[in-house]
Amino acid sequence: MGVVIPLEENRNPQASIAPLLELVHQDMALVNQLILSKTGSDVAMIPEVAKHLIDSGGKRLRPMLTLAAATMCNYDGKHHVTLAASVEFMHTATLLHDDVVDESDMRRGKKSARMVWGNQASVLVGDFLLGQAFRMMVDAGSMAALGVLSNAAAVIAEGEVMQLAAAQSMETTEDDYLAVIRAKTAALFSAAAEVGPILAGSEKPVQDAFRSYGVNLGLAFQLVDDALDYGGSKQALGKNTGDDFREGKITLPVLLCYRRGNEEDRAFWRDAMEKGSSDDIALGRAMQLMEQHGAISATISRARHYGQIARDALAPLPASPHKEALLEVVEFCISRVN
Amino acid sequence: MGVVIPLEENRNPQASIAPLLELVHQDMALVNQLILSKTGSDVAMIPEVAKHLIDSGGKRLRPMLTLAAATMCNYDGKHHVTLAASVEFMHTATLLHDDVVDESDMRRGKKSARMVWGNQASVLVGDFLLGQAFRMMVDAGSMAALGVLSNAAAVIAEGEVMQLAAAQSMETTEDDYLAVIRAKTAALFSAAAEVGPILAGSEKPVQDAFRSYGVNLGLAFQLVDDALDYGGSKQALGKNTGDDFREGKITLPVLLCYRRGNEEDRAFWRDAMEKGSSDDIALGRAMQLMEQHGAISATISRARHYGQIARDALAPLPASPHKEALLEVVEFCISRVN
Repeated sequence: MGVVIPLEENRNPQASIAPLLELVHQDMALVNQLILSKTGSDVAMIPEVAKHLIDSGGKRLRPMLTLAAATMCNYDGKHHVTLAASVEFMHTATLLHDDVVDESDMRRGKKSARMVWGNQASVLVGDFLLGQAFRMMVDAGSMAALGVLSNAAAVIAEGEVMQLAAAQSMETTEDDYLAVIRAKTAALFSAAAEVGPILAGSEKPVQDAFRSYGVNLGLAFQLVDDALDYGGSKQALGKNTGDDFREGKITLPVLLCYRRGNEEDRAFWRDAMEKGSSDDIALGRAMQLMEQHGAISATISRARHYGQIARDALAPLPASPHKEALLEVVEFCISRVN
Repeated sequence: MGVVIPLEENRNPQASIAPLLELVHQDMALVNQLILSKTGSDVAMIPEVAKHLIDSGGKRLRPMLTLAAATMCNYDGKHHVTLAASVEFMHTATLLHDDVVDESDMRRGKKSARMVWGNQASVLVGDFLLGQAFRMMVDAGSMAALGVLSNAAAVIAEGEVMQLAAAQSMETTEDDYLAVIRAKTAALFSAAAEVGPILAGSEKPVQDAFRSYGVNLGLAFQLVDDALDYGGSKQALGKNTGDDFREGKITLPVLLCYRRGNEEDRAFWRDAMEKGSSDDIALGRAMQLMEQHGAISATISRARHYGQIARDALAPLPASPHKEALLEVVEFCISRVN
């Protein structure tokens, strides 16, 4: 007897980020202004590279989390704008360094910064944006928020090294992989959400709720991203199907497919991911194996699990438009896989 | 009538870093312990890479400045140890990223980290150390110190981009070059010294004095480093004579030599530095031109100028063993050129 996983539970293919954007759009305008002003530099290359990334169609989900969380906790100052911008700078710095480390040619459907300005500029402009992020955190004046965000900065980098050092083996367990994405993706979602109640001076259970919401939303977001790489259209994600595969990046769909396959399948995955035999013919076989073993739907099912934890984390908090919008963001992150 | 530059003024070839080390050695033992504990990670590559750099014979001048400045200002807490370690982490992170950007093979006479572990690990472990540095600053609990150090982080990166973007031309002026090293080297010396009086709650003129001491010591230090590249022995500096030349790095000795030379000389420098014709034969000619135009002694004369400003910056402060040691460090930085 098999177990039927209720894939359709809570599914809302119309789920959107729009209600959140609508609620925070005035503050986001201030965040965008601040971002522009803080990428200014007499060194012309800095605003050029930063603008390339910042204009390239990211959803700015992370700063919106900070804004919505702060407002939902009745914060009435202006420092949530400063921290939201610093969160986006941390994210942008990470993208710049990631592209260098992964030797990526494309980012959101555009040439990556390193392809336009070189690896050197990507490393250094990333460092500059990180420095600016910390400057802004100091401006915001909350030592507790600084603690959360500086912790995230170290954890993110640790996660990246973990992935570089240990996770490039097909023997990586699902737990190992989760530890990597918990650090490299979920930690910033978590910090972005948590600094809202911290600024507002909310009680610890409220802080904890937002932290849990953030980390689980981040896990769901990353797992869906992993799934999209083997099934999303180029248009939907702004990256080509199979980018992770071609880069030999071992993600959860690959790990599940490897475990569920036979010896011959496993040899194929080892060749493709560990030895770099990942051309378009191999990608075709990979997609076929994913289909055969239900690896994509299993990955989305995992994402849905973390999404549910994120929803329940916010459950004790009083009803509000912001809460509704944050719950819908969970659905949006999962349903964008269509 | 020419002006004779008194090159020998205040010269003390026996000047040493030893008195400073002696005064701060108990605190430095705590800094070293903290550094070791904060490079710890379950991700094995992080302590390996960090240890490689940290063990590789740096003088740890910057954290010693923080310790000495704090003690000289009668600080009696423990946070100067935390900030000193965070300053060294910022420096180490910069070295890791620098080696990637400059494509350096060697660092202090050892293989650079990127040659052992690759560019990817160097970028990411650098990010991790920077994250840890900020965590430690938060631990130290001084928002003012955080402001100074986060400002330095952004300025350092900005200086590196400036060098990458604008300074790779022989038309770079001495002022442009100074702006680069003021940002990429002197800013951290300055911040390292300034956070001492900040922790101690000293008055603004005292803070200003240490900041001025730090920035000018940093300028002198970098200019002597530039000179050593064309005249120091491999043993003395732990790098090969001509490393900067081979990497096409335009430093003050080169800029002075270019300006003082004739058209033929200038064509040689453009070929060597801008077009990469910098083999060992070219290095021989470069050294001969440096000699002919007095470019090394002029660079050291410039260094001595900034060293004098550093000394005078501390002049108003009361006499103490720490002050004497900090003044001797200025002489040490300049006289190590022998």
